[in-house]
Amino acid sequence: MEFDQVVKNRRSIRTFARREVPDDVVTDVIGCALHAPSSMNGQPWCFVLVRSPGTKRRLSEIKDKYCPPEKRTYPAGFLEEAPVIVVTCVERARAYDRGLESGVLATGHLLLAAANVGLTGVYLSAYKADTPQVADDIRAVLRLPPNMDPITIVPLGYPGSDPEPKTLRSLDEVVFHEAFGER
Amino acid sequence: MEFDQVVKNRRSIRTFARREVPDDVVTDVIGCALHAPSSMNGQPWCFVLVRSPGTKRRLSEIKDKYCPPEKRTYPAGFLEEAPVIVVTCVERARAYDRGLESGVLATGHLLLAAANVGLTGVYLSAYKADTPQVADDIRAVLRLPPNMDPITIVPLGYPGSDPEPKTLRSLDEVVFHEAFGER
Repeated sequence: MEFDQVVKNRRSIRTFARREVPDDVVTDVIGCALHAPSSMNGQPWCFVLVRSPGTKRRLSEIKDKYCPPEKRTYPAGFLEEAPVIVVTCVERARAYDRGLESGVLATGHLLLAAANVGLTGVYLSAYKADTPQVADDIRAVLRLPPNMDPITIVPLGYPGSDPEPKTLRSLDEVVFHEAFGER
Repeated sequence: MEFDQVVKNRRSIRTFARREVPDDVVTDVIGCALHAPSSMNGQPWCFVLVRSPGTKRRLSEIKDKYCPPEKRTYPAGFLEEAPVIVVTCVERARAYDRGLESGVLATGHLLLAAANVGLTGVYLSAYKADTPQVADDIRAVLRLPPNMDPITIVPLGYPGSDPEPKTLRSLDEVVFHEAFGER
């Protein structure tokens, strides 16, 4: 697909069609994520694919357990309906103190690459800066070693509904010249 | 351009051709960044375009001042040669505690959108978690109010050299199934 079209088509849809997503489709999508920039070109990422219902349920429970009150309008139960979940992690020694950024950039690529092949995904965080227990719980579920930090959880599937309309902020509102507030 | 081609073409090049980048090209690129996902769809970003030589120099000096020893192989002086610099910031009240992630996702979109129109950009961080002075110094230069957090600094220009070859990690090395280490 044309790049502009992919960017405009990508949306976060939380209902999935009852249609499998084969491993080779998922690995093609991850193949795009490998091209993301990373600090010192450390490419610190790895990706754990989850298809087991038990593991999906445990990830969903962790997300709900630590969900702040203002975000409870989006419960994590839909993770159990996703054909596959990709958990993006980073290895600290390769990350040059920018593991979070590198993991987020890889996830951004992954979400766009998913849209390019007709999949939808939703960005969910896999850690909280002030609550290390979130990452520890996810480490336990995925048997991640202590030097691997989980960064994001992305359920992937073919969309089961149309996206809600989304209104973007205007360029006039968000672009400044030379200093904040200067149009 | 086709999405896959954009992803493969995007590279971090630190030398720029002596060719202007008009404002409408930059705002088209930022237009793509507005489509990035953000927590609770808060779209917390704004973008400060810098063309003044004095401001470019001050940003370059801040980057070098706080550069950790292991990254001094990449001095920031090349910022002064970029036709334009985009500083991505996020507004805390719109960010739902995920301002960093939203700013990084917007920057990832911006870098790909730049590649789509033949520009090159380099991802530079505009803050350090353990050194709030970095963000404060950038706030002073760009007259950002205290509720705006600078996240990234991206110089943009037409490439002035070919990129070095880049070797990606293999999918076999970084993809696991159900748990870390399981192929």
